[in-house]
Amino acid sequence: MQDRARETRKVLLESAAHLFVERGYTGTSVNDISDHSGKTSGAIYFHYSSKEELALAVVREQFSTWPQLAAPYAASGIPPLEKLVGLSFAVARFLSEDVLARAGARLWAERRAINTSVPTPFDGWALAVTRLLAQARTRGELAEGVEPSTAAVTLVCSFFGLCLLTDEVPGTRNWRTRLDQWWLLMLKSLQADPDPGALLARARERIPASPKSPAPRRT
Amino acid sequence: MQDRARETRKVLLESAAHLFVERGYTGTSVNDISDHSGKTSGAIYFHYSSKEELALAVVREQFSTWPQLAAPYAASGIPPLEKLVGLSFAVARFLSEDVLARAGARLWAERRAINTSVPTPFDGWALAVTRLLAQARTRGELAEGVEPSTAAVTLVCSFFGLCLLTDEVPGTRNWRTRLDQWWLLMLKSLQADPDPGALLARARERIPASPKSPAPRRT
Repeated sequence: MQDRARETRKVLLESAAHLFVERGYTGTSVNDISDHSGKTSGAIYFHYSSKEELALAVVREQFSTWPQLAAPYAASGIPPLEKLVGLSFAVARFLSEDVLARAGARLWAERRAINTSVPTPFDGWALAVTRLLAQARTRGELAEGVEPSTAAVTLVCSFFGLCLLTDEVPGTRNWRTRLDQWWLLMLKSLQADPDPGALLARARERIPASPKSPAPRRT
Repeated sequence: MQDRARETRKVLLESAAHLFVERGYTGTSVNDISDHSGKTSGAIYFHYSSKEELALAVVREQFSTWPQLAAPYAASGIPPLEKLVGLSFAVARFLSEDVLARAGARLWAERRAINTSVPTPFDGWALAVTRLLAQARTRGELAEGVEPSTAAVTLVCSFFGLCLLTDEVPGTRNWRTRLDQWWLLMLKSLQADPDPGALLARARERIPASPKSPAPRRT
């Protein structure tokens, strides 16, 4: 793809994501995206055949960030449960701060209003978590009776509930604190020799800076 | 309210709930509700000033069922953690099978497309869970280091994620099995003397039959 076309697509995806976050899928028209991005409707339709296509492109663009988030945890020296905790913080930050990720989450919530099937990250997450738990098992670090693929699905579902409801439940609105509290409970069940506080502290030390400067939080 | 007016409202709420589940809030018009319920638009507007009002009434009607779900667990003889597990099964069944509850969940997911604030059950749930955990603490049945109100919020968020994603993650689509797997992990951290399997078995024995005959599951 030419640089100019790539740049236009980037601007369109970011404008669309911004508007999907603010107004939702049905509340956003191709005209709105044209106004917000400064690109003509003709230019939009040149790159994306429909609003559905644009929404799907936003979701796919978000998905393309997962490998980048996981990269710091590829090193084999980090214990698998620490990798898992570190990754959860990276993903939660991304879902909280990145406009593409926030648009993806809103599009997923409104998926039944979109005339196409919206891909989800859950299968990929469950697979990654299963692998880490299986590695922990091999190293004797997973509690007896914990079955990796079953526990992985439980973790993915409850992690997502946590990210989704941070602003809806009583208490702190800081997702880091919520995630700490969740891991303190979960690790106690997952670790062969439970020491949740220490593992959490080590994992949080490793969390790299945000891959891009954070977008302003919603008000 | 007269019996006839009450009956009309009931029919309208059930029709609206059915359509909200199938088509979502923006995909459902007052005309659709009129067609589906066999009531005129005039009759609808006599009872509800707008589609928003009708959506709110559906959510409130759902909320009015919570006390009915909790009633079997009011007896003081049941240990609080068993009550908690039993209640979670009752609520999950309700969210899975009852058309008003399913409409409420979809309206909540699409809440930002509705021109009014949609009430949520999460504060009420968190309070109820906090109380049960505090009772477990008093009886010496809660693990050391578990703070009732903090753990309650963690439980509410992750329970909701579990209900929301049952059909979206790999593995069984049976919400009872998912909930079992979740409780086996959580109880291990929550119980002072962990024995999750036994507690779960006792709690499931107590679950009463559904308060109303279940609606067909979505396909």
